Amino acid sequence: MSQISPTHPIRLSDIESWDFETDIAVIGFGGAGGSAAIEAADQGASVIIFDVAAASGGSTALSSAEIYMGGGGGTRIHKATGYEDSTENLFAYLKACQGEIGDEEKIRLYAEGSLDHFNWIVSLGVPYKDSEYPGKAIVAMTDDCLLYTGNEKAWPFNQIAKPVPRGHNLEIEGDNGGPLFMDIVTKNVESRGVQIEYNARALRLIADEDGAVHGFVVRIDNQERNVRASKGVILCTGGFSMNQDMWQHYSPEVAKRAHPIGNPFDDGAGIRMGQGAGASTLHMNQSFVTIPFYPPPSHTFGILVNSQGQRFLNEDVYHARIAVSNIRQLETGEKVYLIIGEKHWKQPNMLGGEVAAAADNIEELAAEIGLPVGNLSHTFNYYNENAAKGEDPLFHKQADWMEPIEPTLAAVDITPGEHGIYVGFTLGGLETRPSGEVLTMDGDIIPGLYAAGRATCGMPRNAEGYASGMSVGDVTFFGRLAGRNAAKR
Amino acid sequence: MSQISPTHPIRLSDIESWDFETDIAVIGFGGAGGSAAIEAADQGASVIIFDVAAASGGSTALSSAEIYMGGGGGTRIHKATGYEDSTENLFAYLKACQGEIGDEEKIRLYAEGSLDHFNWIVSLGVPYKDSEYPGKAIVAMTDDCLLYTGNEKAWPFNQIAKPVPRGHNLEIEGDNGGPLFMDIVTKNVESRGVQIEYNARALRLIADEDGAVHGFVVRIDNQERNVRASKGVILCTGGFSMNQDMWQHYSPEVAKRAHPIGNPFDDGAGIRMGQGAGASTLHMNQSFVTIPFYPPPSHTFGILVNSQGQRFLNEDVYHARIAVSNIRQLETGEKVYLIIGEKHWKQPNMLGGEVAAAADNIEELAAEIGLPVGNLSHTFNYYNENAAKGEDPLFHKQADWMEPIEPTLAAVDITPGEHGIYVGFTLGGLETRPSGEVLTMDGDIIPGLYAAGRATCGMPRNAEGYASGMSVGDVTFFGRLAGRNAAKR
Repeated sequence: MSQISPTHPIRLSDIESWDFETDIAVIGFGGAGGSAAIEAADQGASVIIFDVAAASGGSTALSSAEIYMGGGGGTRIHKATGYEDSTENLFAYLKACQGEIGDEEKIRLYAEGSLDHFNWIVSLGVPYKDSEYPGKAIVAMTDDCLLYTGNEKAWPFNQIAKPVPRGHNLEIEGDNGGPLFMDIVTKNVESRGVQIEYNARALRLIADEDGAVHGFVVRIDNQERNVRASKGVILCTGGFSMNQDMWQHYSPEVAKRAHPIGNPFDDGAGIRMGQGAGASTLHMNQSFVTIPFYPPPSHTFGILVNSQGQRFLNEDVYHARIAVSNIRQLETGEKVYLIIGEKHWKQPNMLGGEVAAAADNIEELAAEIGLPVGNLSHTFNYYNENAAKGEDPLFHKQADWMEPIEPTLAAVDITPGEHGIYVGFTLGGLETRPSGEVLTMDGDIIPGLYAAGRATCGMPRNAEGYASGMSVGDVTFFGRLAGRNAAKR
Repeated sequence: MSQISPTHPIRLSDIESWDFETDIAVIGFGGAGGSAAIEAADQGASVIIFDVAAASGGSTALSSAEIYMGGGGGTRIHKATGYEDSTENLFAYLKACQGEIGDEEKIRLYAEGSLDHFNWIVSLGVPYKDSEYPGKAIVAMTDDCLLYTGNEKAWPFNQIAKPVPRGHNLEIEGDNGGPLFMDIVTKNVESRGVQIEYNARALRLIADEDGAVHGFVVRIDNQERNVRASKGVILCTGGFSMNQDMWQHYSPEVAKRAHPIGNPFDDGAGIRMGQGAGASTLHMNQSFVTIPFYPPPSHTFGILVNSQGQRFLNEDVYHARIAVSNIRQLETGEKVYLIIGEKHWKQPNMLGGEVAAAADNIEELAAEIGLPVGNLSHTFNYYNENAAKGEDPLFHKQADWMEPIEPTLAAVDITPGEHGIYVGFTLGGLETRPSGEVLTMDGDIIPGLYAAGRATCGMPRNAEGYASGMSVGDVTFFGRLAGRNAAKR
């Protein structure tokens, strides 16, 4: 090939014939691609969906497929379980979660469209039980629906928005939501007559001299074939955490300490193709990262301390916020410990921590793990004195999770990169409008190019404010928008 | 124009005539562009340099033009003042400074080439006095040369590399190094017969169908003119801190709290042109940010505390490390205070802090500023007890800067975005090889396109480890490499 790089598009004038012709070509058949295909077909467009894998699913099928939804008074499940959620409350919460890097337009659209999105998902045949999962868990292992999956009840979020559970878990026992969800999405795609090409590796986009995208080259059966998409190509190719070089290049703090989660084809191919066609990338340094701090939820009664023997957050936050904060401690120290009493330390657990020391008092414990004794003992005693009153003057941990920590004391080493099971995936990607239109660095639209899902920098882009269900929520919500908008082009 | 965006290159086949023809076209006449032009001309290439301003200088002329140099035994100034610095020691220090996002290849080249770079700068006629500026200062206001300009003597850097001062200040009184440096560089460019076009705004690159760059369109006297550069175009257009939308888009944490420093044309134009031509961008979220914590250096005897009343760093670090750390405290709190005794609080100073309270003891002070009394008083007393012994068990501040803090006590509010003079500029940009060759996201070279200076993600890319002189060091060092390599193409 004469192109300078696989990221550089093939020129349209070099294409002699087309092997596929369609209105819409979707690349990637996970949650984003499936949703885009359904919506585009429902708009009357002809659609072909291509996936490099032998089956649909993407990383959505590997997830729990909880979806983060609410607003507008609440979903059917909210109503059945006695919760009320306003659109403004949802918006306020999401905005606080994304912080200063948030995209207010995407957040606004997501909040305003969330209830409709729930109804659409239900209309596909996705089953939700009118029930609540009451415990503190990463994943509901029952077939109950509604659970708190983020920082809703934790400071400072509880000061900004009224806490409401918004994770919607599918009506299926065990952690089996993802396969069921993608099975239902796939049937919906198939029933709409969408053509599906598996084992099809998209190689590079086809663009005209002005930069507009007209299709792409795909490898099927070891042959390169040309796909013309008269209305648009939608990149739903996922993130890049499975591309270790790429992940470490852009987001080394997380990539060097976390196991990537997702499917093996989260290799950044779509991001690179889009970028080569002139697309801007955004917040490529952002990664979701987490540690299964709970279950058991009793670990929340412990305190997390850094090398200075200082606490650094309220321990009742969502597990990803813990993981991000733990990594941040390495900027001025070497260690992160969970200090916990035997009453609350439960095994087996998923933490992957190492019990570095156990002792009858905090001074001994501090000395054993080599932390500044006077400082850790102050941290511990100050915490305990206030915990006895149900107060946390430093980080405002909820009273529900506060009890004086009593011997025997353990110091559990969960230093990122050394101990603790840290996992993650990427949150940066192509810059898009909420419509799915892909943008240049000047904010102009690249005609014919759309993207959704983790190939983009989406609504959730900040692990500090992440909640389970935000990513599948985002990929399906903005996947639909991309499909609808491309079909209307 | 038919192009989709100003970032999209003009197609070569659309160019009917050339207004300028040269081997090398340099865009931007600051430190990077000047150095690139000199080296390219010395390789025998014809060179034209274009600048949007009416004169040379760029942001280098607005800086102090300290240059960070050492290694190889030490520069002439090191030897005259009794310092010794090895290349490995310089490399180890720079690597620690850049942290996990550092580019080891650029750091290695910089460390190995630093002494030669010093000699080259001297050969241009840049005067350095064989003397040391002994104090702790952001800028030497005398004509003395050598000073500590970074974190060399501060933990943890002093554990990683032997402290050596490496900031080289020009032999001129006051903070006038930048204008003198650029005056000398400009004379060197002129004396080599390089053609210079001022008031010339580069608009967009010209690329062929395969993506190779052949020139660019420039606006001079309100007319668009075509520049052909047969060997290469070198983008030396600076960063993007003067483009508020762009800075806030990529680096909101800093951009929303810091005044941009640099020249008005640091608007990201070159980064956007390069990106539109297929270039990858790197670490666009990274910004240098600082607060003039000193002079007077006596502020270093104080302690910095966050909303929890906890310290978070050794206060004897470089001022930019303080600024970055202060901003980080806002993730779990609202305030940053300097707690200092009257002996060490000096006015006038440049901090821009507000004395929020003064008191005879720490409990009163804590209550007045609304910080957790029991925690701040512990922080203060623990610090003082250890300071009396010259020790800092938490952050290892050097004994030179430790004395118990004595009444009257002041709490100086330097919360970023509220009080304190925070200033900054961007460190992310086009991705380049050390040679200056601009890269696609796949790591391939875009033929004909080079970049250097703050238009690129250079050697210094992390404010936490920044030292004064790293940026002018980087722009001149890698500017030269880009000029030399383009000329040899």
